[in-house]
Parts: sequence; structure tokens; C-alpha cells
Amino acid sequence: MSITVWLTGLPSAGKSTLARALSESLARRDLDHQILDGDEMREYLTAGLGFSRQDRDTNVRRIGYVASLLSRHGILTICPVISPYQDARDEIRALHDPGRFFEVYVSTPIAECERRDVKGLYARARLGELSNMTGIDDPYEPPRNPDLVVDTVTLGIDLATNAILGPVLTRLDELSRARPTAGN
Amino acid sequence: MSITVWLTGLPSAGKSTLARALSESLARRDLDHQILDGDEMREYLTAGLGFSRQDRDTNVRRIGYVASLLSRHGILTICPVISPYQDARDEIRALHDPGRFFEVYVSTPIAECERRDVKGLYARARLGELSNMTGIDDPYEPPRNPDLVVDTVTLGIDLATNAILGPVLTRLDELSRARPTAGN
Repeated sequence: MSITVWLTGLPSAGKSTLARALSESLARRDLDHQILDGDEMREYLTAGLGFSRQDRDTNVRRIGYVASLLSRHGILTICPVISPYQDARDEIRALHDPGRFFEVYVSTPIAECERRDVKGLYARARLGELSNMTGIDDPYEPPRNPDLVVDTVTLGIDLATNAILGPVLTRLDELSRARPTAGN
Repeated sequence: MSITVWLTGLPSAGKSTLARALSESLARRDLDHQILDGDEMREYLTAGLGFSRQDRDTNVRRIGYVASLLSRHGILTICPVISPYQDARDEIRALHDPGRFFEVYVSTPIAECERRDVKGLYARARLGELSNMTGIDDPYEPPRNPDLVVDTVTLGIDLATNAILGPVLTRLDELSRARPTAGN
């Protein structure tokens, strides 16, 4: 048994960058893990889904379900996914055993996300070329009770990665102590 | 690294029954494994998909992708899925590393499947209440080069389970010998 580390936040908040940095740290520790990146999942897992509320919820539900399978089998699973709605995130949390869903709010303010604009989506949304852009004309509901809030602006990527890794490893440790003879 | 055991065949061929029996045998051996049952996957992974060729292929592709993730992380993954089209099964094989996709053709003849008719689907299809029924008005393409063919009629469930388990364990053994220092 492991946990799912769910990174939620606005586009360009730094979720995928943090996921990759976490992956490198875990690889150095020889910890088996898997990234399920919201964007990369669109080839196989979530192909054809759009950006309506219903499609976004389906996207979150499907990635969350796969994460719950992987983490249940001992694979630390990292999910950088915008996941703008509280209800959908709550639903995914409920799919996991208690304590096995670790929700990280990557709280980068929209002004900074828009300045980064990794994929040029904010610019296109401002020009009216793109609709349903989270943060512009589509809502983002910040987590009500995240397990962790990380501010990539004040911390920078290395410190932000460590700020996640520390509590994640602690959580894993606590859970393995709570179930010393854990099995299926 | 483990393998994906893909059970393909007509409805009521015995795929899910074999998957459950395999699961019990693997549990007794303390081998970490997961069943991804085509029917059960419809709640989260493949909700909303119908039975057109395109939807069937999407169903197979999505389950196969998750199986490839799980088996890559050392979890023996068993997929009882009708998966009627050769092309879609070939596509899933290609997602796996060589030797990691173990295709079992559950070759129960249609007359026997129709006699069993676990879910009453054949009866409804014959009455015209159901369309796109594999084997009746929708095609089933038997595997061209399956890793194994199992006939549940002549063997019975226990022998059929062993007929799969033996070669699967052998394959796992061969793959682990081929990569004695395997890691990610």
C-alpha cells in the first residue's frame, strides 16, 4: 500500500514541474512510483474528453481511479491534474483508503501563472481564441482542506519539492507503522 | 515488472470465472495481482462507452493501457475482456514490453456460450431485444497468434485455470531470468 499525491492548481501553477522533480527524488530513493499527468493521459486514458464540467469531472474520476489502483498496490502515484472542482476531488479521496489520498494545493496566484503561461493558453484565452480556460472564464475551486499548500513563487522548485516530499514520506511512514503487518 | 494476462473470448465463454479462479491461485501464492474486468470497469474507467466498433476499441485500449501500467510495476494483471477485434488486441500488445502481454483465447464454442448465457444476453439478442451482441450480430475475430488457447468445455474450470497458470508462471520466470538485475 502506498499513497496518491494529487497536485491541483491553475494551469501553469507548476504541477507537472513539481511532479517531475518529485519523481527524480523518489527515483534516487529507489521508491517505485508513477506519474499520471492530466495532459499526457489524453492519449489513452482520457482521449476525447473536453472541458465541460462533466468532462472535467470524468477526467478527474478516471485518473483518480487508476491512481487508487496503483497506490493500493504499493506504487506511489503522483497526479498533476488541474481538477478545478472540490466535489470531484472529494470523490477521488473517497476512492482511497483513509490517509492514502494526499491533496497538495499548488497555490500559485493567477497573475504569476499568467506570467509563466507555459503553453500560451492564458494569452489565447485573453484574446478570446480559447474558452473554458480555468481561471479566466471557467472556475477554479481551491481545496477546502488540502493536506498541504505549496507556494512555488516564494519557495522555488527545489524547496517546493522538498516541502511536498517531507510530509509525503512522513505520511507513508505513519501508514506503514499503523499497519505493521499490512497485506491485501 | 510482471505481465498482463489478457483473456479474450465470446460473452459467457468463462473469462471472468477464469480470472477469479486465477486470482485465488495467485493469492495463495502471495503474488500481487489485479483483475481489470471489462464489465466492472464500466463504473469508472469506461463509463459511457457503448458497443460500436469505435467504443469497443476505446474500451480495450483504455483497459490495456492501465494493465500495461500495473504490470510494468510488477503487478500481474488479469483482464477478462471480450475484445473482439484483432487490431485492438495487437495495439495493446504493442503497449507492453516484449513478452509482457500474454494473450489467452478462451475458445468456448458459441453453442456452449449460448447454453450458459450467464447474463441472458444471447436470449435477448435472439429475440431481437439487443443489438451489437458479439457472436450474434457483431463479429468476434479469434486471435491469430494467441499465447495460449483454453477450452473450458473439455477441461472444466480447475483444469482450465491450471492450464493458464502454468505457462503464466513459466513466462514470469523466464522474464525474470532474462533480466536478473531488472529495475526501473
